[in-house]
Amino acid sequence: MADPVELLRSPKLPTGFRAAGVASGIKSGAKLDLGMLSSDLPTCSAATFTTNRVKASPVRLSMRHLKGGDLRAVVVNSGNANACNGPQGDLDAREMAASAAAAAGLEVRQMFVCSTGIIGVPLPVEKVTAAAPDLARALRPSGLRDFAKAILTSDKVAKIVSARVGVGGKTVTVTGCAKGAGMISPNMATMLAFVTTDAAVPGDELAAATRAAVAGSFNCISVDGDMSTNDTVLVMANGAAGNRPIKPGGAGARAFRSALSRVMLELAQRLVRDGEGASKFVTVRVRGAGSDRDARRVAEAVANSALVKCSWNGSDPNWGRVIHAVGYAGARVEQDKVDILFGDLYGARGGVVADTPIGELKAAVAGRDFTVTVDLNLGGGGHTVYTSDLSEGYVAYNRLEYALKIQGR
Amino acid sequence: MADPVELLRSPKLPTGFRAAGVASGIKSGAKLDLGMLSSDLPTCSAATFTTNRVKASPVRLSMRHLKGGDLRAVVVNSGNANACNGPQGDLDAREMAASAAAAAGLEVRQMFVCSTGIIGVPLPVEKVTAAAPDLARALRPSGLRDFAKAILTSDKVAKIVSARVGVGGKTVTVTGCAKGAGMISPNMATMLAFVTTDAAVPGDELAAATRAAVAGSFNCISVDGDMSTNDTVLVMANGAAGNRPIKPGGAGARAFRSALSRVMLELAQRLVRDGEGASKFVTVRVRGAGSDRDARRVAEAVANSALVKCSWNGSDPNWGRVIHAVGYAGARVEQDKVDILFGDLYGARGGVVADTPIGELKAAVAGRDFTVTVDLNLGGGGHTVYTSDLSEGYVAYNRLEYALKIQGR
Repeated sequence: MADPVELLRSPKLPTGFRAAGVASGIKSGAKLDLGMLSSDLPTCSAATFTTNRVKASPVRLSMRHLKGGDLRAVVVNSGNANACNGPQGDLDAREMAASAAAAAGLEVRQMFVCSTGIIGVPLPVEKVTAAAPDLARALRPSGLRDFAKAILTSDKVAKIVSARVGVGGKTVTVTGCAKGAGMISPNMATMLAFVTTDAAVPGDELAAATRAAVAGSFNCISVDGDMSTNDTVLVMANGAAGNRPIKPGGAGARAFRSALSRVMLELAQRLVRDGEGASKFVTVRVRGAGSDRDARRVAEAVANSALVKCSWNGSDPNWGRVIHAVGYAGARVEQDKVDILFGDLYGARGGVVADTPIGELKAAVAGRDFTVTVDLNLGGGGHTVYTSDLSEGYVAYNRLEYALKIQGR
Repeated sequence: MADPVELLRSPKLPTGFRAAGVASGIKSGAKLDLGMLSSDLPTCSAATFTTNRVKASPVRLSMRHLKGGDLRAVVVNSGNANACNGPQGDLDAREMAASAAAAAGLEVRQMFVCSTGIIGVPLPVEKVTAAAPDLARALRPSGLRDFAKAILTSDKVAKIVSARVGVGGKTVTVTGCAKGAGMISPNMATMLAFVTTDAAVPGDELAAATRAAVAGSFNCISVDGDMSTNDTVLVMANGAAGNRPIKPGGAGARAFRSALSRVMLELAQRLVRDGEGASKFVTVRVRGAGSDRDARRVAEAVANSALVKCSWNGSDPNWGRVIHAVGYAGARVEQDKVDILFGDLYGARGGVVADTPIGELKAAVAGRDFTVTVDLNLGGGGHTVYTSDLSEGYVAYNRLEYALKIQGR
C-alpha cells in the first residue's frame, strides 16, 4: 500500500496559523530569540513535558495552561531557560505569557510558554515584554521560518517539516518545527517541538496520538544522554480543514496518526543530525531481544556509550566496544549468540569476530549515515535509537558557558 | 584516635611474594606486556569480577580457579583483552595459565589469569607461552614495579600502594597495584587490581573484607560510565607475617579491613587521576538524600553527565548543568531544596543561584582537584563518587583503535 502521507518540499503552516520571530535582545547581536505561533481559531491541544524532576518555570506554567483546555498560541524565547530561578522565575514566566497574550489580544491562560538556553540565569523579562507588541504584529502565515530560527540555541539549522494526508474527506496539513542540539536523551531533552495542524481532532484522540508519536520519535533519539529541564512537545489542532470528525481507531485517526508520527520522526532525526559536534547519524537497531524493554536498554546503552560514540567519530568499526555496552545494558544477553552488523555486514557473529574483511567494515562506517544492528538472537524484542557520535567539537562547545554568561562576555 | 594504618612512601611487596614483568611482543616496541605475581606460600584468596554480561575468557577461567581455593599466582597480559574470542579464547586463556604455571612450578588450577586491552582480537597466545619461562625466572621480591608496568594499557603511570598496620601482634603489609584509564564506571571497569598481603586471614573474612573494600573504592569511581568485560580485583593473603588468627569483628579484622580499604581507595583515586584525557579529579559528594541509594543515583548521574564533565574541563562552575543531572537521576528531589557547592562555596542554594561572586566560584574549580557537593536537604542519605572531566583528549584517544589493530598498524 502506498504511504498516504506526503511530505512537502516547501513546508508551510496549516490553514489558520500564523507565526513570527523577532530579536528581543536576550541574545546578543540582533539574533532572533523570541517567537510566537498562534491559531486564528480555537484549538484542541496536547503536550508532553520533560520527566526531569527539576522543571523550568515555563514548563510548570504551561502544564497548568494546557489543563485549562483553551490554548491559542505559544510564546518561546531562546538564550535563557528560565530554569532554577525560584519564585522570580515563576513570576517572569507568567509575565512573559501575559505580555505576549495582551499583545496578541488573548487571555493569559490561552498562552503556552517555553524557554530554552542557559539554566540558572534570571530571564531578562523586560526584553520580552518590550518586544511582545512587535512580535504580535509580525505574526503571519509565512512566518514559520522566523519562528523556527528564534527558538534555536546551539542548533546550526532550523528544522521544519510539513506533511499532508487525507482525513475525513479533506486534505489536512501537519507542520512541525523543533530545536535540540545538546542535552538530547531518550525521554525528552533541551528539546522543544511545536506541531500545528488544521485537522479537527478530538482531545482524547489528539492526546493519544501525541503520546504515540513522541514515543516513536523524540523518545528514540539520543545525542549525549542528558535530559533537560525544559523539554516540551506541543501539538495544536484548529480544525480549519473542516474534515469529518475523527473517530478513535478509524481510518481518519490512522491517517492523522501516520502524518503526526512522520512529522515528529523526521524532526527528531534532524535534531540528531544537528546535535552538538555531531559528524555522524547512527541508527542503532536492536532485534532478537527477549523483550522490547530489553531491546531498548541495549539500544540506549550502545547509543550513550562514550567509548562507542568516540569510535564512530573515528569511523572505526569497533564491534568490541559495541558488545561491551550490550553486556552492561542490564538486558538478558548470551554473549555467544550476539551478532553485530555495520550496515549489512557482520562485524561479529555469535559473539566473535566475523570473517568480513576489515576494509569492507571500514567502508560501512565511513559515511555520515550508517546503521549498527545488534541481534541478540534470543526472541522477538526490538527497538531503534537514532544517535550521533561524540566529537572533540562537542567537548569544545560545552567547556565554557556559565562563567562567560554571568560575566557578560 | 590516630589512624592505625601507615601508607608507605616506598611501596614494597609483603613477605613471601615475588613479581615480574617482561615484554612478550603482544605490544609493539618491546613494551612490558606480561606480568606475574606469585606467593612462595599457599594463599587464601578473594576476588570480585565485572558484572558485565559479556565476560572475557580469562575472567571465566579465573572464577573457576578461585573456587578451587588454592591460588598461588596470577599471570596478566596487556594489549589484548581476550574477550569475545569464542571457544578459542577459552583455550587460549587456559594455555596462558598452563604455560605460566608450568614455568613457575605450579599446577594450572593454582594460576589466576587476567587480560586487558582490545576486545575481539585473538590473543597471540604463542607469545605468552614463549615468554613464560623468562617471566617465571624474573620473579623477585623487588619485581612489583615491572609487574605494575606490564599490566598498563592507556594508563600513563603505574599505580602501586603499600600500607602497614598492626594485626594480631604483628605488623602486616598490604600492597596493591592497579590499572585503569578507560571504560571506568562504578561496578568495575577495564580495571584490574591485585592486592597482596602477608597477613593470615581466614577465607570468609578475606572475602567479606574484599567486598567491603571494593564497594568503598573501585565501585565509587567513574571515568566514562563504561563497564568493561575484564574487570577483576584479586586479593591474595599468604600469612607470612605470622599474626594471630583474625577473628571476624575483632580488632585484628578491623585493622586489616582498614588497611585493605585504604589501599584500594588510594588505588581507585589514582585510576581516576590517570583516566583517559583526564585533566581534573573531581569528588562528587551527595548528602541530605532520602536514602543512600538515592544519593548514589544522584552522584553517578552527575559524575557521568557528558555536559557536566565538559563544564569541568573548562573550569566552569556551571551549577545549572549539575542540577539538571540531579533532576534526571531517578532519585527523590525537591528542586527548591537543592544546594550545590563548588569546594565550600555555594553555587546554588535552595535551587536558585547563590550570591557567591562568580570569580570566587571560578577559582574554586580552577585547580586540578575540587569537590562538588550536592545537598538534597531531604534526609540522611549520602554517597561519594570520584570522577574526572571529559576532554577533547579523551575523544581523540578513543576515536580509532580496532581498524588500526586489525590492519597491524
